Amino acid sequence: MNGAESLVRTLVAGGVEVCFTNPGTSEMHFVAALDRVEGMACVLFLFEGGATGAADGYSRVADKPASTLLHLGPGLANGWANLHNARRARSMVVNIVGEHATYHRQYDAPLTSDIEALAATVSAWTRTGASALEVAADGAAAIQAARTAPGRIATLILPADTAWQPGSGVAPVPPVPERARAGEDAVAAAAAALASGEPALLHLGDRALRGQAKRIAARIARKTGAKLLAMTSNARIDRGAGEVPIERLPYPIDQAIAVLAPYRRVILVGATRPVGFFAYPGKPSVLTHPDCETVTLATPDEDQIEALERLAEAVGAPGEIDLPPPPRPELPTAGPLGDDTIGRVLGALIPEGAVVCDESLTTGRNFFGATHGAAPHSWLQLSGGAIGVGIPMATGAAVAARGRKVIGLQADGSALYTAQALWTQARERLDVVTLIWSNRAYAILRGELANVGAHNPGPKALGMLSLDNPPVDWVSLARGYGVEARRVETLEAFTDVFAHALARRGPFLIEVAL
Amino acid sequence: MNGAESLVRTLVAGGVEVCFTNPGTSEMHFVAALDRVEGMACVLFLFEGGATGAADGYSRVADKPASTLLHLGPGLANGWANLHNARRARSMVVNIVGEHATYHRQYDAPLTSDIEALAATVSAWTRTGASALEVAADGAAAIQAARTAPGRIATLILPADTAWQPGSGVAPVPPVPERARAGEDAVAAAAAALASGEPALLHLGDRALRGQAKRIAARIARKTGAKLLAMTSNARIDRGAGEVPIERLPYPIDQAIAVLAPYRRVILVGATRPVGFFAYPGKPSVLTHPDCETVTLATPDEDQIEALERLAEAVGAPGEIDLPPPPRPELPTAGPLGDDTIGRVLGALIPEGAVVCDESLTTGRNFFGATHGAAPHSWLQLSGGAIGVGIPMATGAAVAARGRKVIGLQADGSALYTAQALWTQARERLDVVTLIWSNRAYAILRGELANVGAHNPGPKALGMLSLDNPPVDWVSLARGYGVEARRVETLEAFTDVFAHALARRGPFLIEVAL
Repeated sequence: MNGAESLVRTLVAGGVEVCFTNPGTSEMHFVAALDRVEGMACVLFLFEGGATGAADGYSRVADKPASTLLHLGPGLANGWANLHNARRARSMVVNIVGEHATYHRQYDAPLTSDIEALAATVSAWTRTGASALEVAADGAAAIQAARTAPGRIATLILPADTAWQPGSGVAPVPPVPERARAGEDAVAAAAAALASGEPALLHLGDRALRGQAKRIAARIARKTGAKLLAMTSNARIDRGAGEVPIERLPYPIDQAIAVLAPYRRVILVGATRPVGFFAYPGKPSVLTHPDCETVTLATPDEDQIEALERLAEAVGAPGEIDLPPPPRPELPTAGPLGDDTIGRVLGALIPEGAVVCDESLTTGRNFFGATHGAAPHSWLQLSGGAIGVGIPMATGAAVAARGRKVIGLQADGSALYTAQALWTQARERLDVVTLIWSNRAYAILRGELANVGAHNPGPKALGMLSLDNPPVDWVSLARGYGVEARRVETLEAFTDVFAHALARRGPFLIEVAL
Repeated sequence: MNGAESLVRTLVAGGVEVCFTNPGTSEMHFVAALDRVEGMACVLFLFEGGATGAADGYSRVADKPASTLLHLGPGLANGWANLHNARRARSMVVNIVGEHATYHRQYDAPLTSDIEALAATVSAWTRTGASALEVAADGAAAIQAARTAPGRIATLILPADTAWQPGSGVAPVPPVPERARAGEDAVAAAAAALASGEPALLHLGDRALRGQAKRIAARIARKTGAKLLAMTSNARIDRGAGEVPIERLPYPIDQAIAVLAPYRRVILVGATRPVGFFAYPGKPSVLTHPDCETVTLATPDEDQIEALERLAEAVGAPGEIDLPPPPRPELPTAGPLGDDTIGRVLGALIPEGAVVCDESLTTGRNFFGATHGAAPHSWLQLSGGAIGVGIPMATGAAVAARGRKVIGLQADGSALYTAQALWTQARERLDVVTLIWSNRAYAILRGELANVGAHNPGPKALGMLSLDNPPVDWVSLARGYGVEARRVETLEAFTDVFAHALARRGPFLIEVAL
């Protein structure tokens, strides 16, 4: 058994069941080993950003790592942006990068680069395999690292000779440390903040946005008068009927400052401190009121649910909370095709168990509010600001969520970064409906020009924000990748085609003219 | 005048006339400044790999740098693979990467990453702007670095506040050092190698493949009996009727070893030592015969033409060489549509002054030999092995070569990495004809599986090399990006449609069924 097969068997034994890949020469032994080992699905992408975005989406749904298999420095670089998003989502990824044979690197062949330095810029754990006999143990250590809270990118660099020389067989995965317990002082400080009489906010992120955590947070809120607020971007929120509804901190900086202005105590639970997504001239980086005290109950590394339970006990909010069934949104029957009506269609039609992958940006800012009462579903967002995660993330989510419907809410400019992943959806017959918000512009940047103080933009500047010359034809693009597609220009057509797409199986794309 | 405008004016004053970009919020002041400054064209891409590949193609044709404008770490990462190719081609690139405002970085907002560490993995020169007053001088230093032989990637990281605060105005570009002169000992060693009586090879790369250098090399070869051979991958060869024909070292390792086997002296002129593109079990990394001595006449940093002149003098080969006009290839009129006939069509139809951007990989291995006698043209290749350079490189070459025809010879698997650049060709109405070799496979990897000793591949492994499920429809893809396209399945149709595409203006794509 060579090093590659030892590694693949170690991955499978360690619970890694999928490999998202675009392989090259140096990875051929790993690829060949996949045929000799049961239990590892191998999903091909036309571009590595698809593979890494899929690994992100998979981890968010499955709560376990997938592996990737990328081709040397350029393959890693092509996957970097969505690894960055995965890192910000605290996804678990066993990121495997092929490399020249150990003895070949010294010759500086054309594909040579400093892969380890490149990997370190996006990985919490990086190791280069030193020999075929050790590479299974390296893989086991990578699984351990990826699974360590809060979820990490573990990059194993695999020189070709460590794959083709005789290996060790399976290596066991070392024990994964439990999530740390929040300190007593953190619980006491949070309880004191809530008892201060000052307006208080529980700011939730990470695991504090799963169903059980939100229910505990809601008890605390009801008891103390504190408000609940999710972060702007979140890896996954389980929501819809039966779940505690929660709003998010708005993205636009003035709105975010206004939402936070009333609070003098902010308690972070799996969330990070609210700061501007960007800096803007004359506006603060920290978005809370200058007189606001910020207290951390539990970091993303810590057990947020257990910490919330202790806080609930400390403030005297035991028991369970009754959630009144929210009103199920009704289908709008008339009106223009726009944010408001689209949000209501989503609220009415999102099916139970769906996974919504949201890279809507400007278009989708009211969709979240319009879908609190939808059937129970999970909502995944662009987490690291590196656009181009949506179609790949939906692809990986669909691999993890076989039997559940995946719905992509997709800004057009962002979708154009990694549209190749549509081909993988067709190849794997994945059950993904992608809704493209076709406004043919980098609409977000039109607002940002003014926000950063670049007033009176001229034709060159405005031209850089416009995608209408020529207009991108999404129906043609999707068909080019083997995915059925339709363009809709009215509310009636959108509702009909979306309902049709949800009722059938397999990938479908709807270009929604805005 | 703010920092951004000071920087843009410095770039224009320093001879940088084009910016290839996909900008974001942190780059809005730079974008806004473009409207206030004459002389900087701004070319938008839907993905940063298009922008960096275009900068590579531009530099190879124009022999001067373009600038890029990329959005923080993810934008740089998306452009990394084609910067790697540009680095290997020794292209000059002023690579500008936006960054959070200096005071905002400490807050670790979602898009934050270690841009400097990332940039250093692909740049010869990296600097982060410290203040708006210094950023014009930083830009001038970047131009100097990019123009320093042999051509470099210079990355300037531009924090948003260094763009929006008051700047210094234009900064002058410091003098660019002349190319170093090859040492006397190097010329003497090369002359001695040629006088040894052993079979000798002049191995040419970089500027030694331009017309004048090849003519000097041909004189030396005629006088001494040495052979000429280009590297496997080259940034640019000027060739066709009137130029010295030269073959390239083959890519497949067994063929490369066989070609080099007769030689006991190899003299490098702008070339690097011939080594395997990859390592293969049981095969050497260094491809020359074990008894071969390798001598360096001139490194890529040095003046290769001047060194060749001195070598010619040392071996007594003065004067000019007469080049018999090569036979102009004739159009094949019958036969199957395949490598042989396509090569002959190219030889007959490549128009004078054309720029050929070659990312053909397996399909195109005989095209070079079939086009020695074509009308004079330049031939640009994938230089760093990071696939996905072709369509972007052709786009940048077309910006540099307005009035000349650009022809892309394009493997389908590689084209799918960065096909978005077709949209830029349509937007800029660039005169590019892209020929897609549609074999619907990573054909190169089929051979590599066996080469690395992964015999008897199973269905999973073979599935990873196949692009036919579903088949990619290139006519739909191209139309989706606004580029006219046709699919051809016979030699007659290929010849007709290619001739038609050459005769018209603007981008056109031909999917060639293989």
